[in-house]
Amino acid sequence: MKVFIVFAHPEEKSFNGSLLKETVAQLKSQGHEVKVSDLYKQHWKPQIDEDDFPATHEKGTRLQVAAASAKAFYGNKLTLDVVEEQEKNQMGRFVNFTIPSLVVRYACLLKGWVERVFSLGFGYGTGEYTDTHFGDRYGEGVLTGKKAMIITTVGGTVEHYSARGINGPINDVLFTINHGLLFFTGMTVLPPFVTYKTDSATEEVFQNEAKKLRETLKNIETIKPINYRKQNFGDYNLPGCTLKEGLEQPGETGYDIHIIKD
Amino acid sequence: MKVFIVFAHPEEKSFNGSLLKETVAQLKSQGHEVKVSDLYKQHWKPQIDEDDFPATHEKGTRLQVAAASAKAFYGNKLTLDVVEEQEKNQMGRFVNFTIPSLVVRYACLLKGWVERVFSLGFGYGTGEYTDTHFGDRYGEGVLTGKKAMIITTVGGTVEHYSARGINGPINDVLFTINHGLLFFTGMTVLPPFVTYKTDSATEEVFQNEAKKLRETLKNIETIKPINYRKQNFGDYNLPGCTLKEGLEQPGETGYDIHIIKD
Repeated sequence: MKVFIVFAHPEEKSFNGSLLKETVAQLKSQGHEVKVSDLYKQHWKPQIDEDDFPATHEKGTRLQVAAASAKAFYGNKLTLDVVEEQEKNQMGRFVNFTIPSLVVRYACLLKGWVERVFSLGFGYGTGEYTDTHFGDRYGEGVLTGKKAMIITTVGGTVEHYSARGINGPINDVLFTINHGLLFFTGMTVLPPFVTYKTDSATEEVFQNEAKKLRETLKNIETIKPINYRKQNFGDYNLPGCTLKEGLEQPGETGYDIHIIKD
Repeated sequence: MKVFIVFAHPEEKSFNGSLLKETVAQLKSQGHEVKVSDLYKQHWKPQIDEDDFPATHEKGTRLQVAAASAKAFYGNKLTLDVVEEQEKNQMGRFVNFTIPSLVVRYACLLKGWVERVFSLGFGYGTGEYTDTHFGDRYGEGVLTGKKAMIITTVGGTVEHYSARGINGPINDVLFTINHGLLFFTGMTVLPPFVTYKTDSATEEVFQNEAKKLRETLKNIETIKPINYRKQNFGDYNLPGCTLKEGLEQPGETGYDIHIIKD
């Protein structure tokens, strides 16, 4: 299997950098082909601006990002750095996002990667809009058939991210990425691999986490994905995209209603 | 009142840029002093890296961001661009974040602003850690006494972001910013001002939204904030920071349990 990893941490000697090395080594030992985009090392340009559309936008005129993005994507005029990332992404059957300290810190380069690489026609804006189909999104899209998984570290404890924890449940914190971005583009999303309290992690903690990560990666082809509801297959009223009454579990609210429980 | 606005959109002629102009004009007409950080125009360096700590980190050695950030903040060695933003932020009694198309696009520069400006000692890591107090955070912190409000636009409709909408309720989508970032640093958070479906917005739609925005800003001193629960005042078990049993409304789950209902 071809695996594509996006990594966004300034320090390769960090906990995250070490997890990345474990990931690459483990996947290769299983016979997978691995490609890594190391956004800091690549000096990835994070912000989207008119320099992204040199052939499809006239400098100094009003920039309408979606329109310029569509013109550039369909006319094969995106910038080379973006095209390369789209190709790496397309090639991989498995896409892995390594996102350190998700909530407040570090992830800006990855955010900028998404803004630029998931152009109109690639990450959004595809498919037909009819009475029974509201675009190819949430379970359908250009990236259908790929699996994705977030590997991340957070400073807080597992309790801080538990059902009653003050930071919110970890799956809610990750929802706008797992569901709003990865599942949105058609990818199948595996449960995230999260390490807590890495700020004070010892070598022993790292070794334990590395072992857990290797075990997870061994099962990567069979891990059960998060069972998000697809948009265009009967569960939602269209075009409002609201979940039909009665499909959720009793008492379920918020993000949870968009996940099918066993 | 002194108002500080952080703006992160590549195009001043955009819907967002026009809302910014309305905001500045309206606030000034009410006698407020307004300062704007226009991150694209300032060529804001988004990513945090070793160049952020020239005096407190030795190039080429392992970068530990929190430690380097603390040393730089407490030793007055942060870079000038970061110090200037911290000062603008400190000066304002009201902080306004204008975030276009929040979920997937555009906001990377703002994310990078937060990563760098909210350094240890400023945005996190302050206060004592005892059995009854887990740091100055969630309702306490350096930015206590300030009010904050998000002004944002999204491509989806109001239904897409409703209680049963596929994107998730708008207040859940904004929770990691409103609660996890703004309230976390001690700020009081006002309900966000959100414009939906701006991609296809006509001049008439803009004028309506501009009018609503002006009305909102007129009441800025009296708008009821989102009533998030403070961390260190009895509602949470410490240090796990889990909400004590029975405080939420019956059936409430997810992010909602952290908001006190009337």
